[in-house]
Amino acid sequence: MDGDKKPWDPSQLRKYDLNLEEIPRLHYKDPKIDEYIKENKPVVITESNIVKPAVQRWSLEYLERNLGHSGHTVFVSRNHKFKYYDEKKIYNRVSNTKGVEFTPPTRKVEMRIEDFMKRVKEWKKGDERIYLQQSLTTTVGNNIVEDFVKFDWDYVNGKQTKHNWGPLTSNLLFIAMEGNQTPCHYDEQENFFAQVQGYKRCILFPPSQFECLYPYPVHHPHDRQSMVDFERPDYNKFPKFKNVKGWEAVVGPGDVLYIPIYWWHHIESLLRGGPTVTVNFWYKGGPSTLEYPLKDHQKVSITRNVEKMLLEVLQDPKEVGPLLRSMVLGRYTE
Amino acid sequence: MDGDKKPWDPSQLRKYDLNLEEIPRLHYKDPKIDEYIKENKPVVITESNIVKPAVQRWSLEYLERNLGHSGHTVFVSRNHKFKYYDEKKIYNRVSNTKGVEFTPPTRKVEMRIEDFMKRVKEWKKGDERIYLQQSLTTTVGNNIVEDFVKFDWDYVNGKQTKHNWGPLTSNLLFIAMEGNQTPCHYDEQENFFAQVQGYKRCILFPPSQFECLYPYPVHHPHDRQSMVDFERPDYNKFPKFKNVKGWEAVVGPGDVLYIPIYWWHHIESLLRGGPTVTVNFWYKGGPSTLEYPLKDHQKVSITRNVEKMLLEVLQDPKEVGPLLRSMVLGRYTE
Ligand SMILES: [Zn+2]
Ligand SMILES: [Zn+2]
Repeated sequence: MDGDKKPWDPSQLRKYDLNLEEIPRLHYKDPKIDEYIKENKPVVITESNIVKPAVQRWSLEYLERNLGHSGHTVFVSRNHKFKYYDEKKIYNRVSNTKGVEFTPPTRKVEMRIEDFMKRVKEWKKGDERIYLQQSLTTTVGNNIVEDFVKFDWDYVNGKQTKHNWGPLTSNLLFIAMEGNQTPCHYDEQENFFAQVQGYKRCILFPPSQFECLYPYPVHHPHDRQSMVDFERPDYNKFPKFKNVKGWEAVVGPGDVLYIPIYWWHHIESLLRGGPTVTVNFWYKGGPSTLEYPLKDHQKVSITRNVEKMLLEVLQDPKEVGPLLRSMVLGRYTE
Repeated sequence: MDGDKKPWDPSQLRKYDLNLEEIPRLHYKDPKIDEYIKENKPVVITESNIVKPAVQRWSLEYLERNLGHSGHTVFVSRNHKFKYYDEKKIYNRVSNTKGVEFTPPTRKVEMRIEDFMKRVKEWKKGDERIYLQQSLTTTVGNNIVEDFVKFDWDYVNGKQTKHNWGPLTSNLLFIAMEGNQTPCHYDEQENFFAQVQGYKRCILFPPSQFECLYPYPVHHPHDRQSMVDFERPDYNKFPKFKNVKGWEAVVGPGDVLYIPIYWWHHIESLLRGGPTVTVNFWYKGGPSTLEYPLKDHQKVSITRNVEKMLLEVLQDPKEVGPLLRSMVLGRYTE
């Protein structure tokens, strides 16, 4: 970025009542990057070559010509929110009687890339929104594969080795319409979030703020997602959301945001900023030795295991809440 | 008991604001007793020979002469409450740094039986109270052993076999002063509670009322005890105690109360009724196959295991509450 002249302005950011600090931006050769990663703190890595071939070539037209003509995975939403859900956790009286009754907020469809691009171009207010989310490890055209192998794998593999991460599990390609939003959630993987085209605003919260962000039960299809609607927070149900304190960055082409494992993130393509393209790198976490004091994300993981164990032994998601309430209310409340 | 003429009157019972029903009394040959036991419901077995030799011979004088002259385990309390605590869960900076800071409400002392009996006889209001609680499997005199082997073992072993209980783990002898109280708690064993001399009032609650009775955390020395003071319930802290619904019986010489595993029980020797003598039979529960729907006591056991597991992994009892609160408040509360 050249000095103070930003290629976007604050009116392109949705308004939230949040206490936010800026995530530092560091040149990719800066050794302080490793301190951030080591301490599981987010940082924006600038001017790297991590996804340079993509930044240089992956315009929407190029992607349309080269992404391949089989179907791609596209989510369809009636509003700007694309809240993830796990289909495997939805109740089905034939195949999943232990699931949760649930109406998905978005539809998952297969779409040819030409149809996707056409709908993006012709979109007008009131239309359904769409969001392509496609693994780069599945079939994509030759040009894309060539670009992909020219990513700066030395750099990212170097970070993986240095910080003792597990294997790379996938690279996901995201093509979003302007204004599309991925509501606040956490992932159980380390993430290099590489911006290719357009601008995305990323709001992050550390795992220690678990209790301010009220994730759905682990057995719920919205597992790992916050129950709080950032645009209309229900402070009666979620009083500690008032205490939440986050970190934010707006990332543009060439920026790579490190999203540490178990960190919460809310992501939105800027308003009136055109479509955006992002590639992420998901790595499994490092080996989890229980050294004391435990890290906050390890406590989140313990919580998840308790919830999973309870569902396993109770065999019915409707019984998890009552048992947890009887365990905690009046006994462990202050 | 001969008809309506009770050897005690209601003024000998402490007053509590509780909704109570009577526990049925059944002749020991009544086949319905097995239905109660099978369904884990309490019942008073009358006119049996289970502890007949003790009922006939174990007066305080007889016990004083025959119990043996080594020390016996006696609890000393400044009031009428003898609330159990587990010494192993008390913090100690040398031997138990993972314990809980705790001042025991009673003192455990070794006392010769003559001294115990003398103090009981000479007790006057304002003095400390005492309560002998002694395993019958440790050294007792020959006469006591002879009486003990003449208990109706065929009857109790028959129940054990029929209901698939585990082994007998101990017989405890209780010698209480009138008015002594054992506050509400549950045990993890099946219990035949055989009254030998004097009258005890027993108030029981099923394991399903766990949430109304607010047991201490499992890692607390008062584990398995209710946090609610029945004489001055704090309805702000323990609102569901208002909904508690119990069962009660006053047992006298020859009565045997079946206290099912995990059932809550509050026990008190009647006011102005003289000292009481009781022998209990503790059996391990049956093999716990998880058949669905789970029984209420199995859910209590699951809760206990979650709390134990959390202490194990967090390594600090002070961290269990905050983690459970963050898991439940706003997420699993209604
Ligand atoms: Zn994510
Ligand atoms: Zn007991």
